[in-house]
Amino acid sequence: MFETVNDFQASLRHLTTKNETCFKAAFEHQKQLTKPTGSLGKLEEYACFMAAWQGNERPEIELAQALVFAGNHGVCNQGVNPFPQEVTMAMVENFRNGGAAINQLATHSKADLNIVLLSEGQATADITVGPAMTEQECLEAINSGAAAVNLKTDILLLGEMGIGNSTVSSALCLGTFGGVGSDWVGAGTGSDSEGIIKKAKVIERAIAVNREGLNTPFQILMSLGGREQAAICGALIAARLNSIPVIIDGFIASSAIAPLISVKEIYDHVIFAHQSAEAGHGRLLNKLGKVPMFDLGMRLGEGSGAALALNIIRASLACHNGMATFAEAGIGT
Amino acid sequence: MFETVNDFQASLRHLTTKNETCFKAAFEHQKQLTKPTGSLGKLEEYACFMAAWQGNERPEIELAQALVFAGNHGVCNQGVNPFPQEVTMAMVENFRNGGAAINQLATHSKADLNIVLLSEGQATADITVGPAMTEQECLEAINSGAAAVNLKTDILLLGEMGIGNSTVSSALCLGTFGGVGSDWVGAGTGSDSEGIIKKAKVIERAIAVNREGLNTPFQILMSLGGREQAAICGALIAARLNSIPVIIDGFIASSAIAPLISVKEIYDHVIFAHQSAEAGHGRLLNKLGKVPMFDLGMRLGEGSGAALALNIIRASLACHNGMATFAEAGIGT
Repeated sequence: MFETVNDFQASLRHLTTKNETCFKAAFEHQKQLTKPTGSLGKLEEYACFMAAWQGNERPEIELAQALVFAGNHGVCNQGVNPFPQEVTMAMVENFRNGGAAINQLATHSKADLNIVLLSEGQATADITVGPAMTEQECLEAINSGAAAVNLKTDILLLGEMGIGNSTVSSALCLGTFGGVGSDWVGAGTGSDSEGIIKKAKVIERAIAVNREGLNTPFQILMSLGGREQAAICGALIAARLNSIPVIIDGFIASSAIAPLISVKEIYDHVIFAHQSAEAGHGRLLNKLGKVPMFDLGMRLGEGSGAALALNIIRASLACHNGMATFAEAGIGT
Repeated sequence: MFETVNDFQASLRHLTTKNETCFKAAFEHQKQLTKPTGSLGKLEEYACFMAAWQGNERPEIELAQALVFAGNHGVCNQGVNPFPQEVTMAMVENFRNGGAAINQLATHSKADLNIVLLSEGQATADITVGPAMTEQECLEAINSGAAAVNLKTDILLLGEMGIGNSTVSSALCLGTFGGVGSDWVGAGTGSDSEGIIKKAKVIERAIAVNREGLNTPFQILMSLGGREQAAICGALIAARLNSIPVIIDGFIASSAIAPLISVKEIYDHVIFAHQSAEAGHGRLLNKLGKVPMFDLGMRLGEGSGAALALNIIRASLACHNGMATFAEAGIGT
């Protein structure tokens, strides 16, 4: 999809916009439904959002694709994680066998789950030593993400799995927004307080080592990211170019797209599913200017929060499309 | 079910308790599932809650009953509501024709929806003049609520509809917890700021007029409540006596059970679905010591928030019952 880095950067300058006509039609339709205007709160907003991005004043979800990208990270060499990298492959196997949380949640919310293992699980380079990826590797991961999007989907859910990727995510946040390491690190899959202090130092070192190469979204991704982070960006942009609404999962998926913030409109077609229990996510959502749908204290990743959010979006459309109007019900307004 | 007021009060002194063995078994099972312990946040808690109340370490929801009680309120004579009482009947008709929000949301969450119109829509007495109901009327409404519970249900959702019942709810809160009127009033179905001030005065007058009869849960319900509030209490207790877990909807459903607070354990089998946008609900949840599942800015009633919450509970059970253990997936812990 993107042959060069320039192609990637150029795509961010040619973003589709929402369909205002459909947005307004949906908004007016909401006022006719048998309820006080506004009383369904965000359910009303989500229905209008879906109308605007699907270009359909009666938006529908027949196909909902959930994409979970998996990758490995050279920064694990720094001992930032209590689990070995092999767990990434074991979890991919678990996804494929239907045994993980996301399998149950995708089935429950009727999402079509696709697992994409990037570069066969080959780890990136250690970000405390130099850039995580070469330009070519980063482009490849971005393109893998873009290519994985089923362009027929009515909504796209983006999630991830990768031992060590909470450290990478914190590095992406620190590289994008600055601050100190401890602003952005948390327990991840199971670090204790000593581990958290170590992670903060590790990401500060990663920023110092890579400081010359953090000037563009692509450079930040390439230097500090992982393959699944780059893939999420690719999928996000592919969805946008096709006006497909997106649900972003938790801290790691949110931080994957944080480097794109210089083109803030890139988040216009995105619903942020939930506030993760992972420290730093609240701060990140603030920086992105986004309010998540819910906070259930989750911090699993895998697209688990996005799958739950899909249920709520489906419910909002059920109301939007199924409720009687005041006129139909013979109730005066 | 309750022949006398004493029977009702006595039921509160003989509450079932959760099954600790099943709770612990479910809790231990969660630790074996292929995820970091605790990473599914409240989903893990809800699965253990369901195990504890169903007395089944692998809880299931085959039948989910949603009960929506509807009633009318004499306090509407005070001009506290921009809508006429006839709207209650029109909405009941809308429920029966499948046109309301709760119809769509119950279908979406696979809940079995039952609408119970109390006393054929006959209004209670005006609480600014005297008690809303006689003892006999209040007992009847409580018994109607209890009788409406399908004892085969695996979980019970409680909601309501009734023009004027946000005023009644605020009165119940003021009568139960004290304070001033403005602590507990909000816009309801569509009051403006002048209307809200008026509502605050109306509920203060209701408390003053009824002050001699606010000493027991039953007296508060009878003096300040409505039939749907009494019915919700009856259903809540019937569910508890049969160890059926309950999801309570929003502000009005929560305030219906607020008068029972002197027996705080009565809330042990209850999940509070959401924080309503209706002013006073946050304060009420604090007083009850409960954290709601989500806040989507909803303020419709009808059990709409409870139906959404059912989706999340179903998702939590899908994970609990469907995920592979570390041993099954061959992942070392």
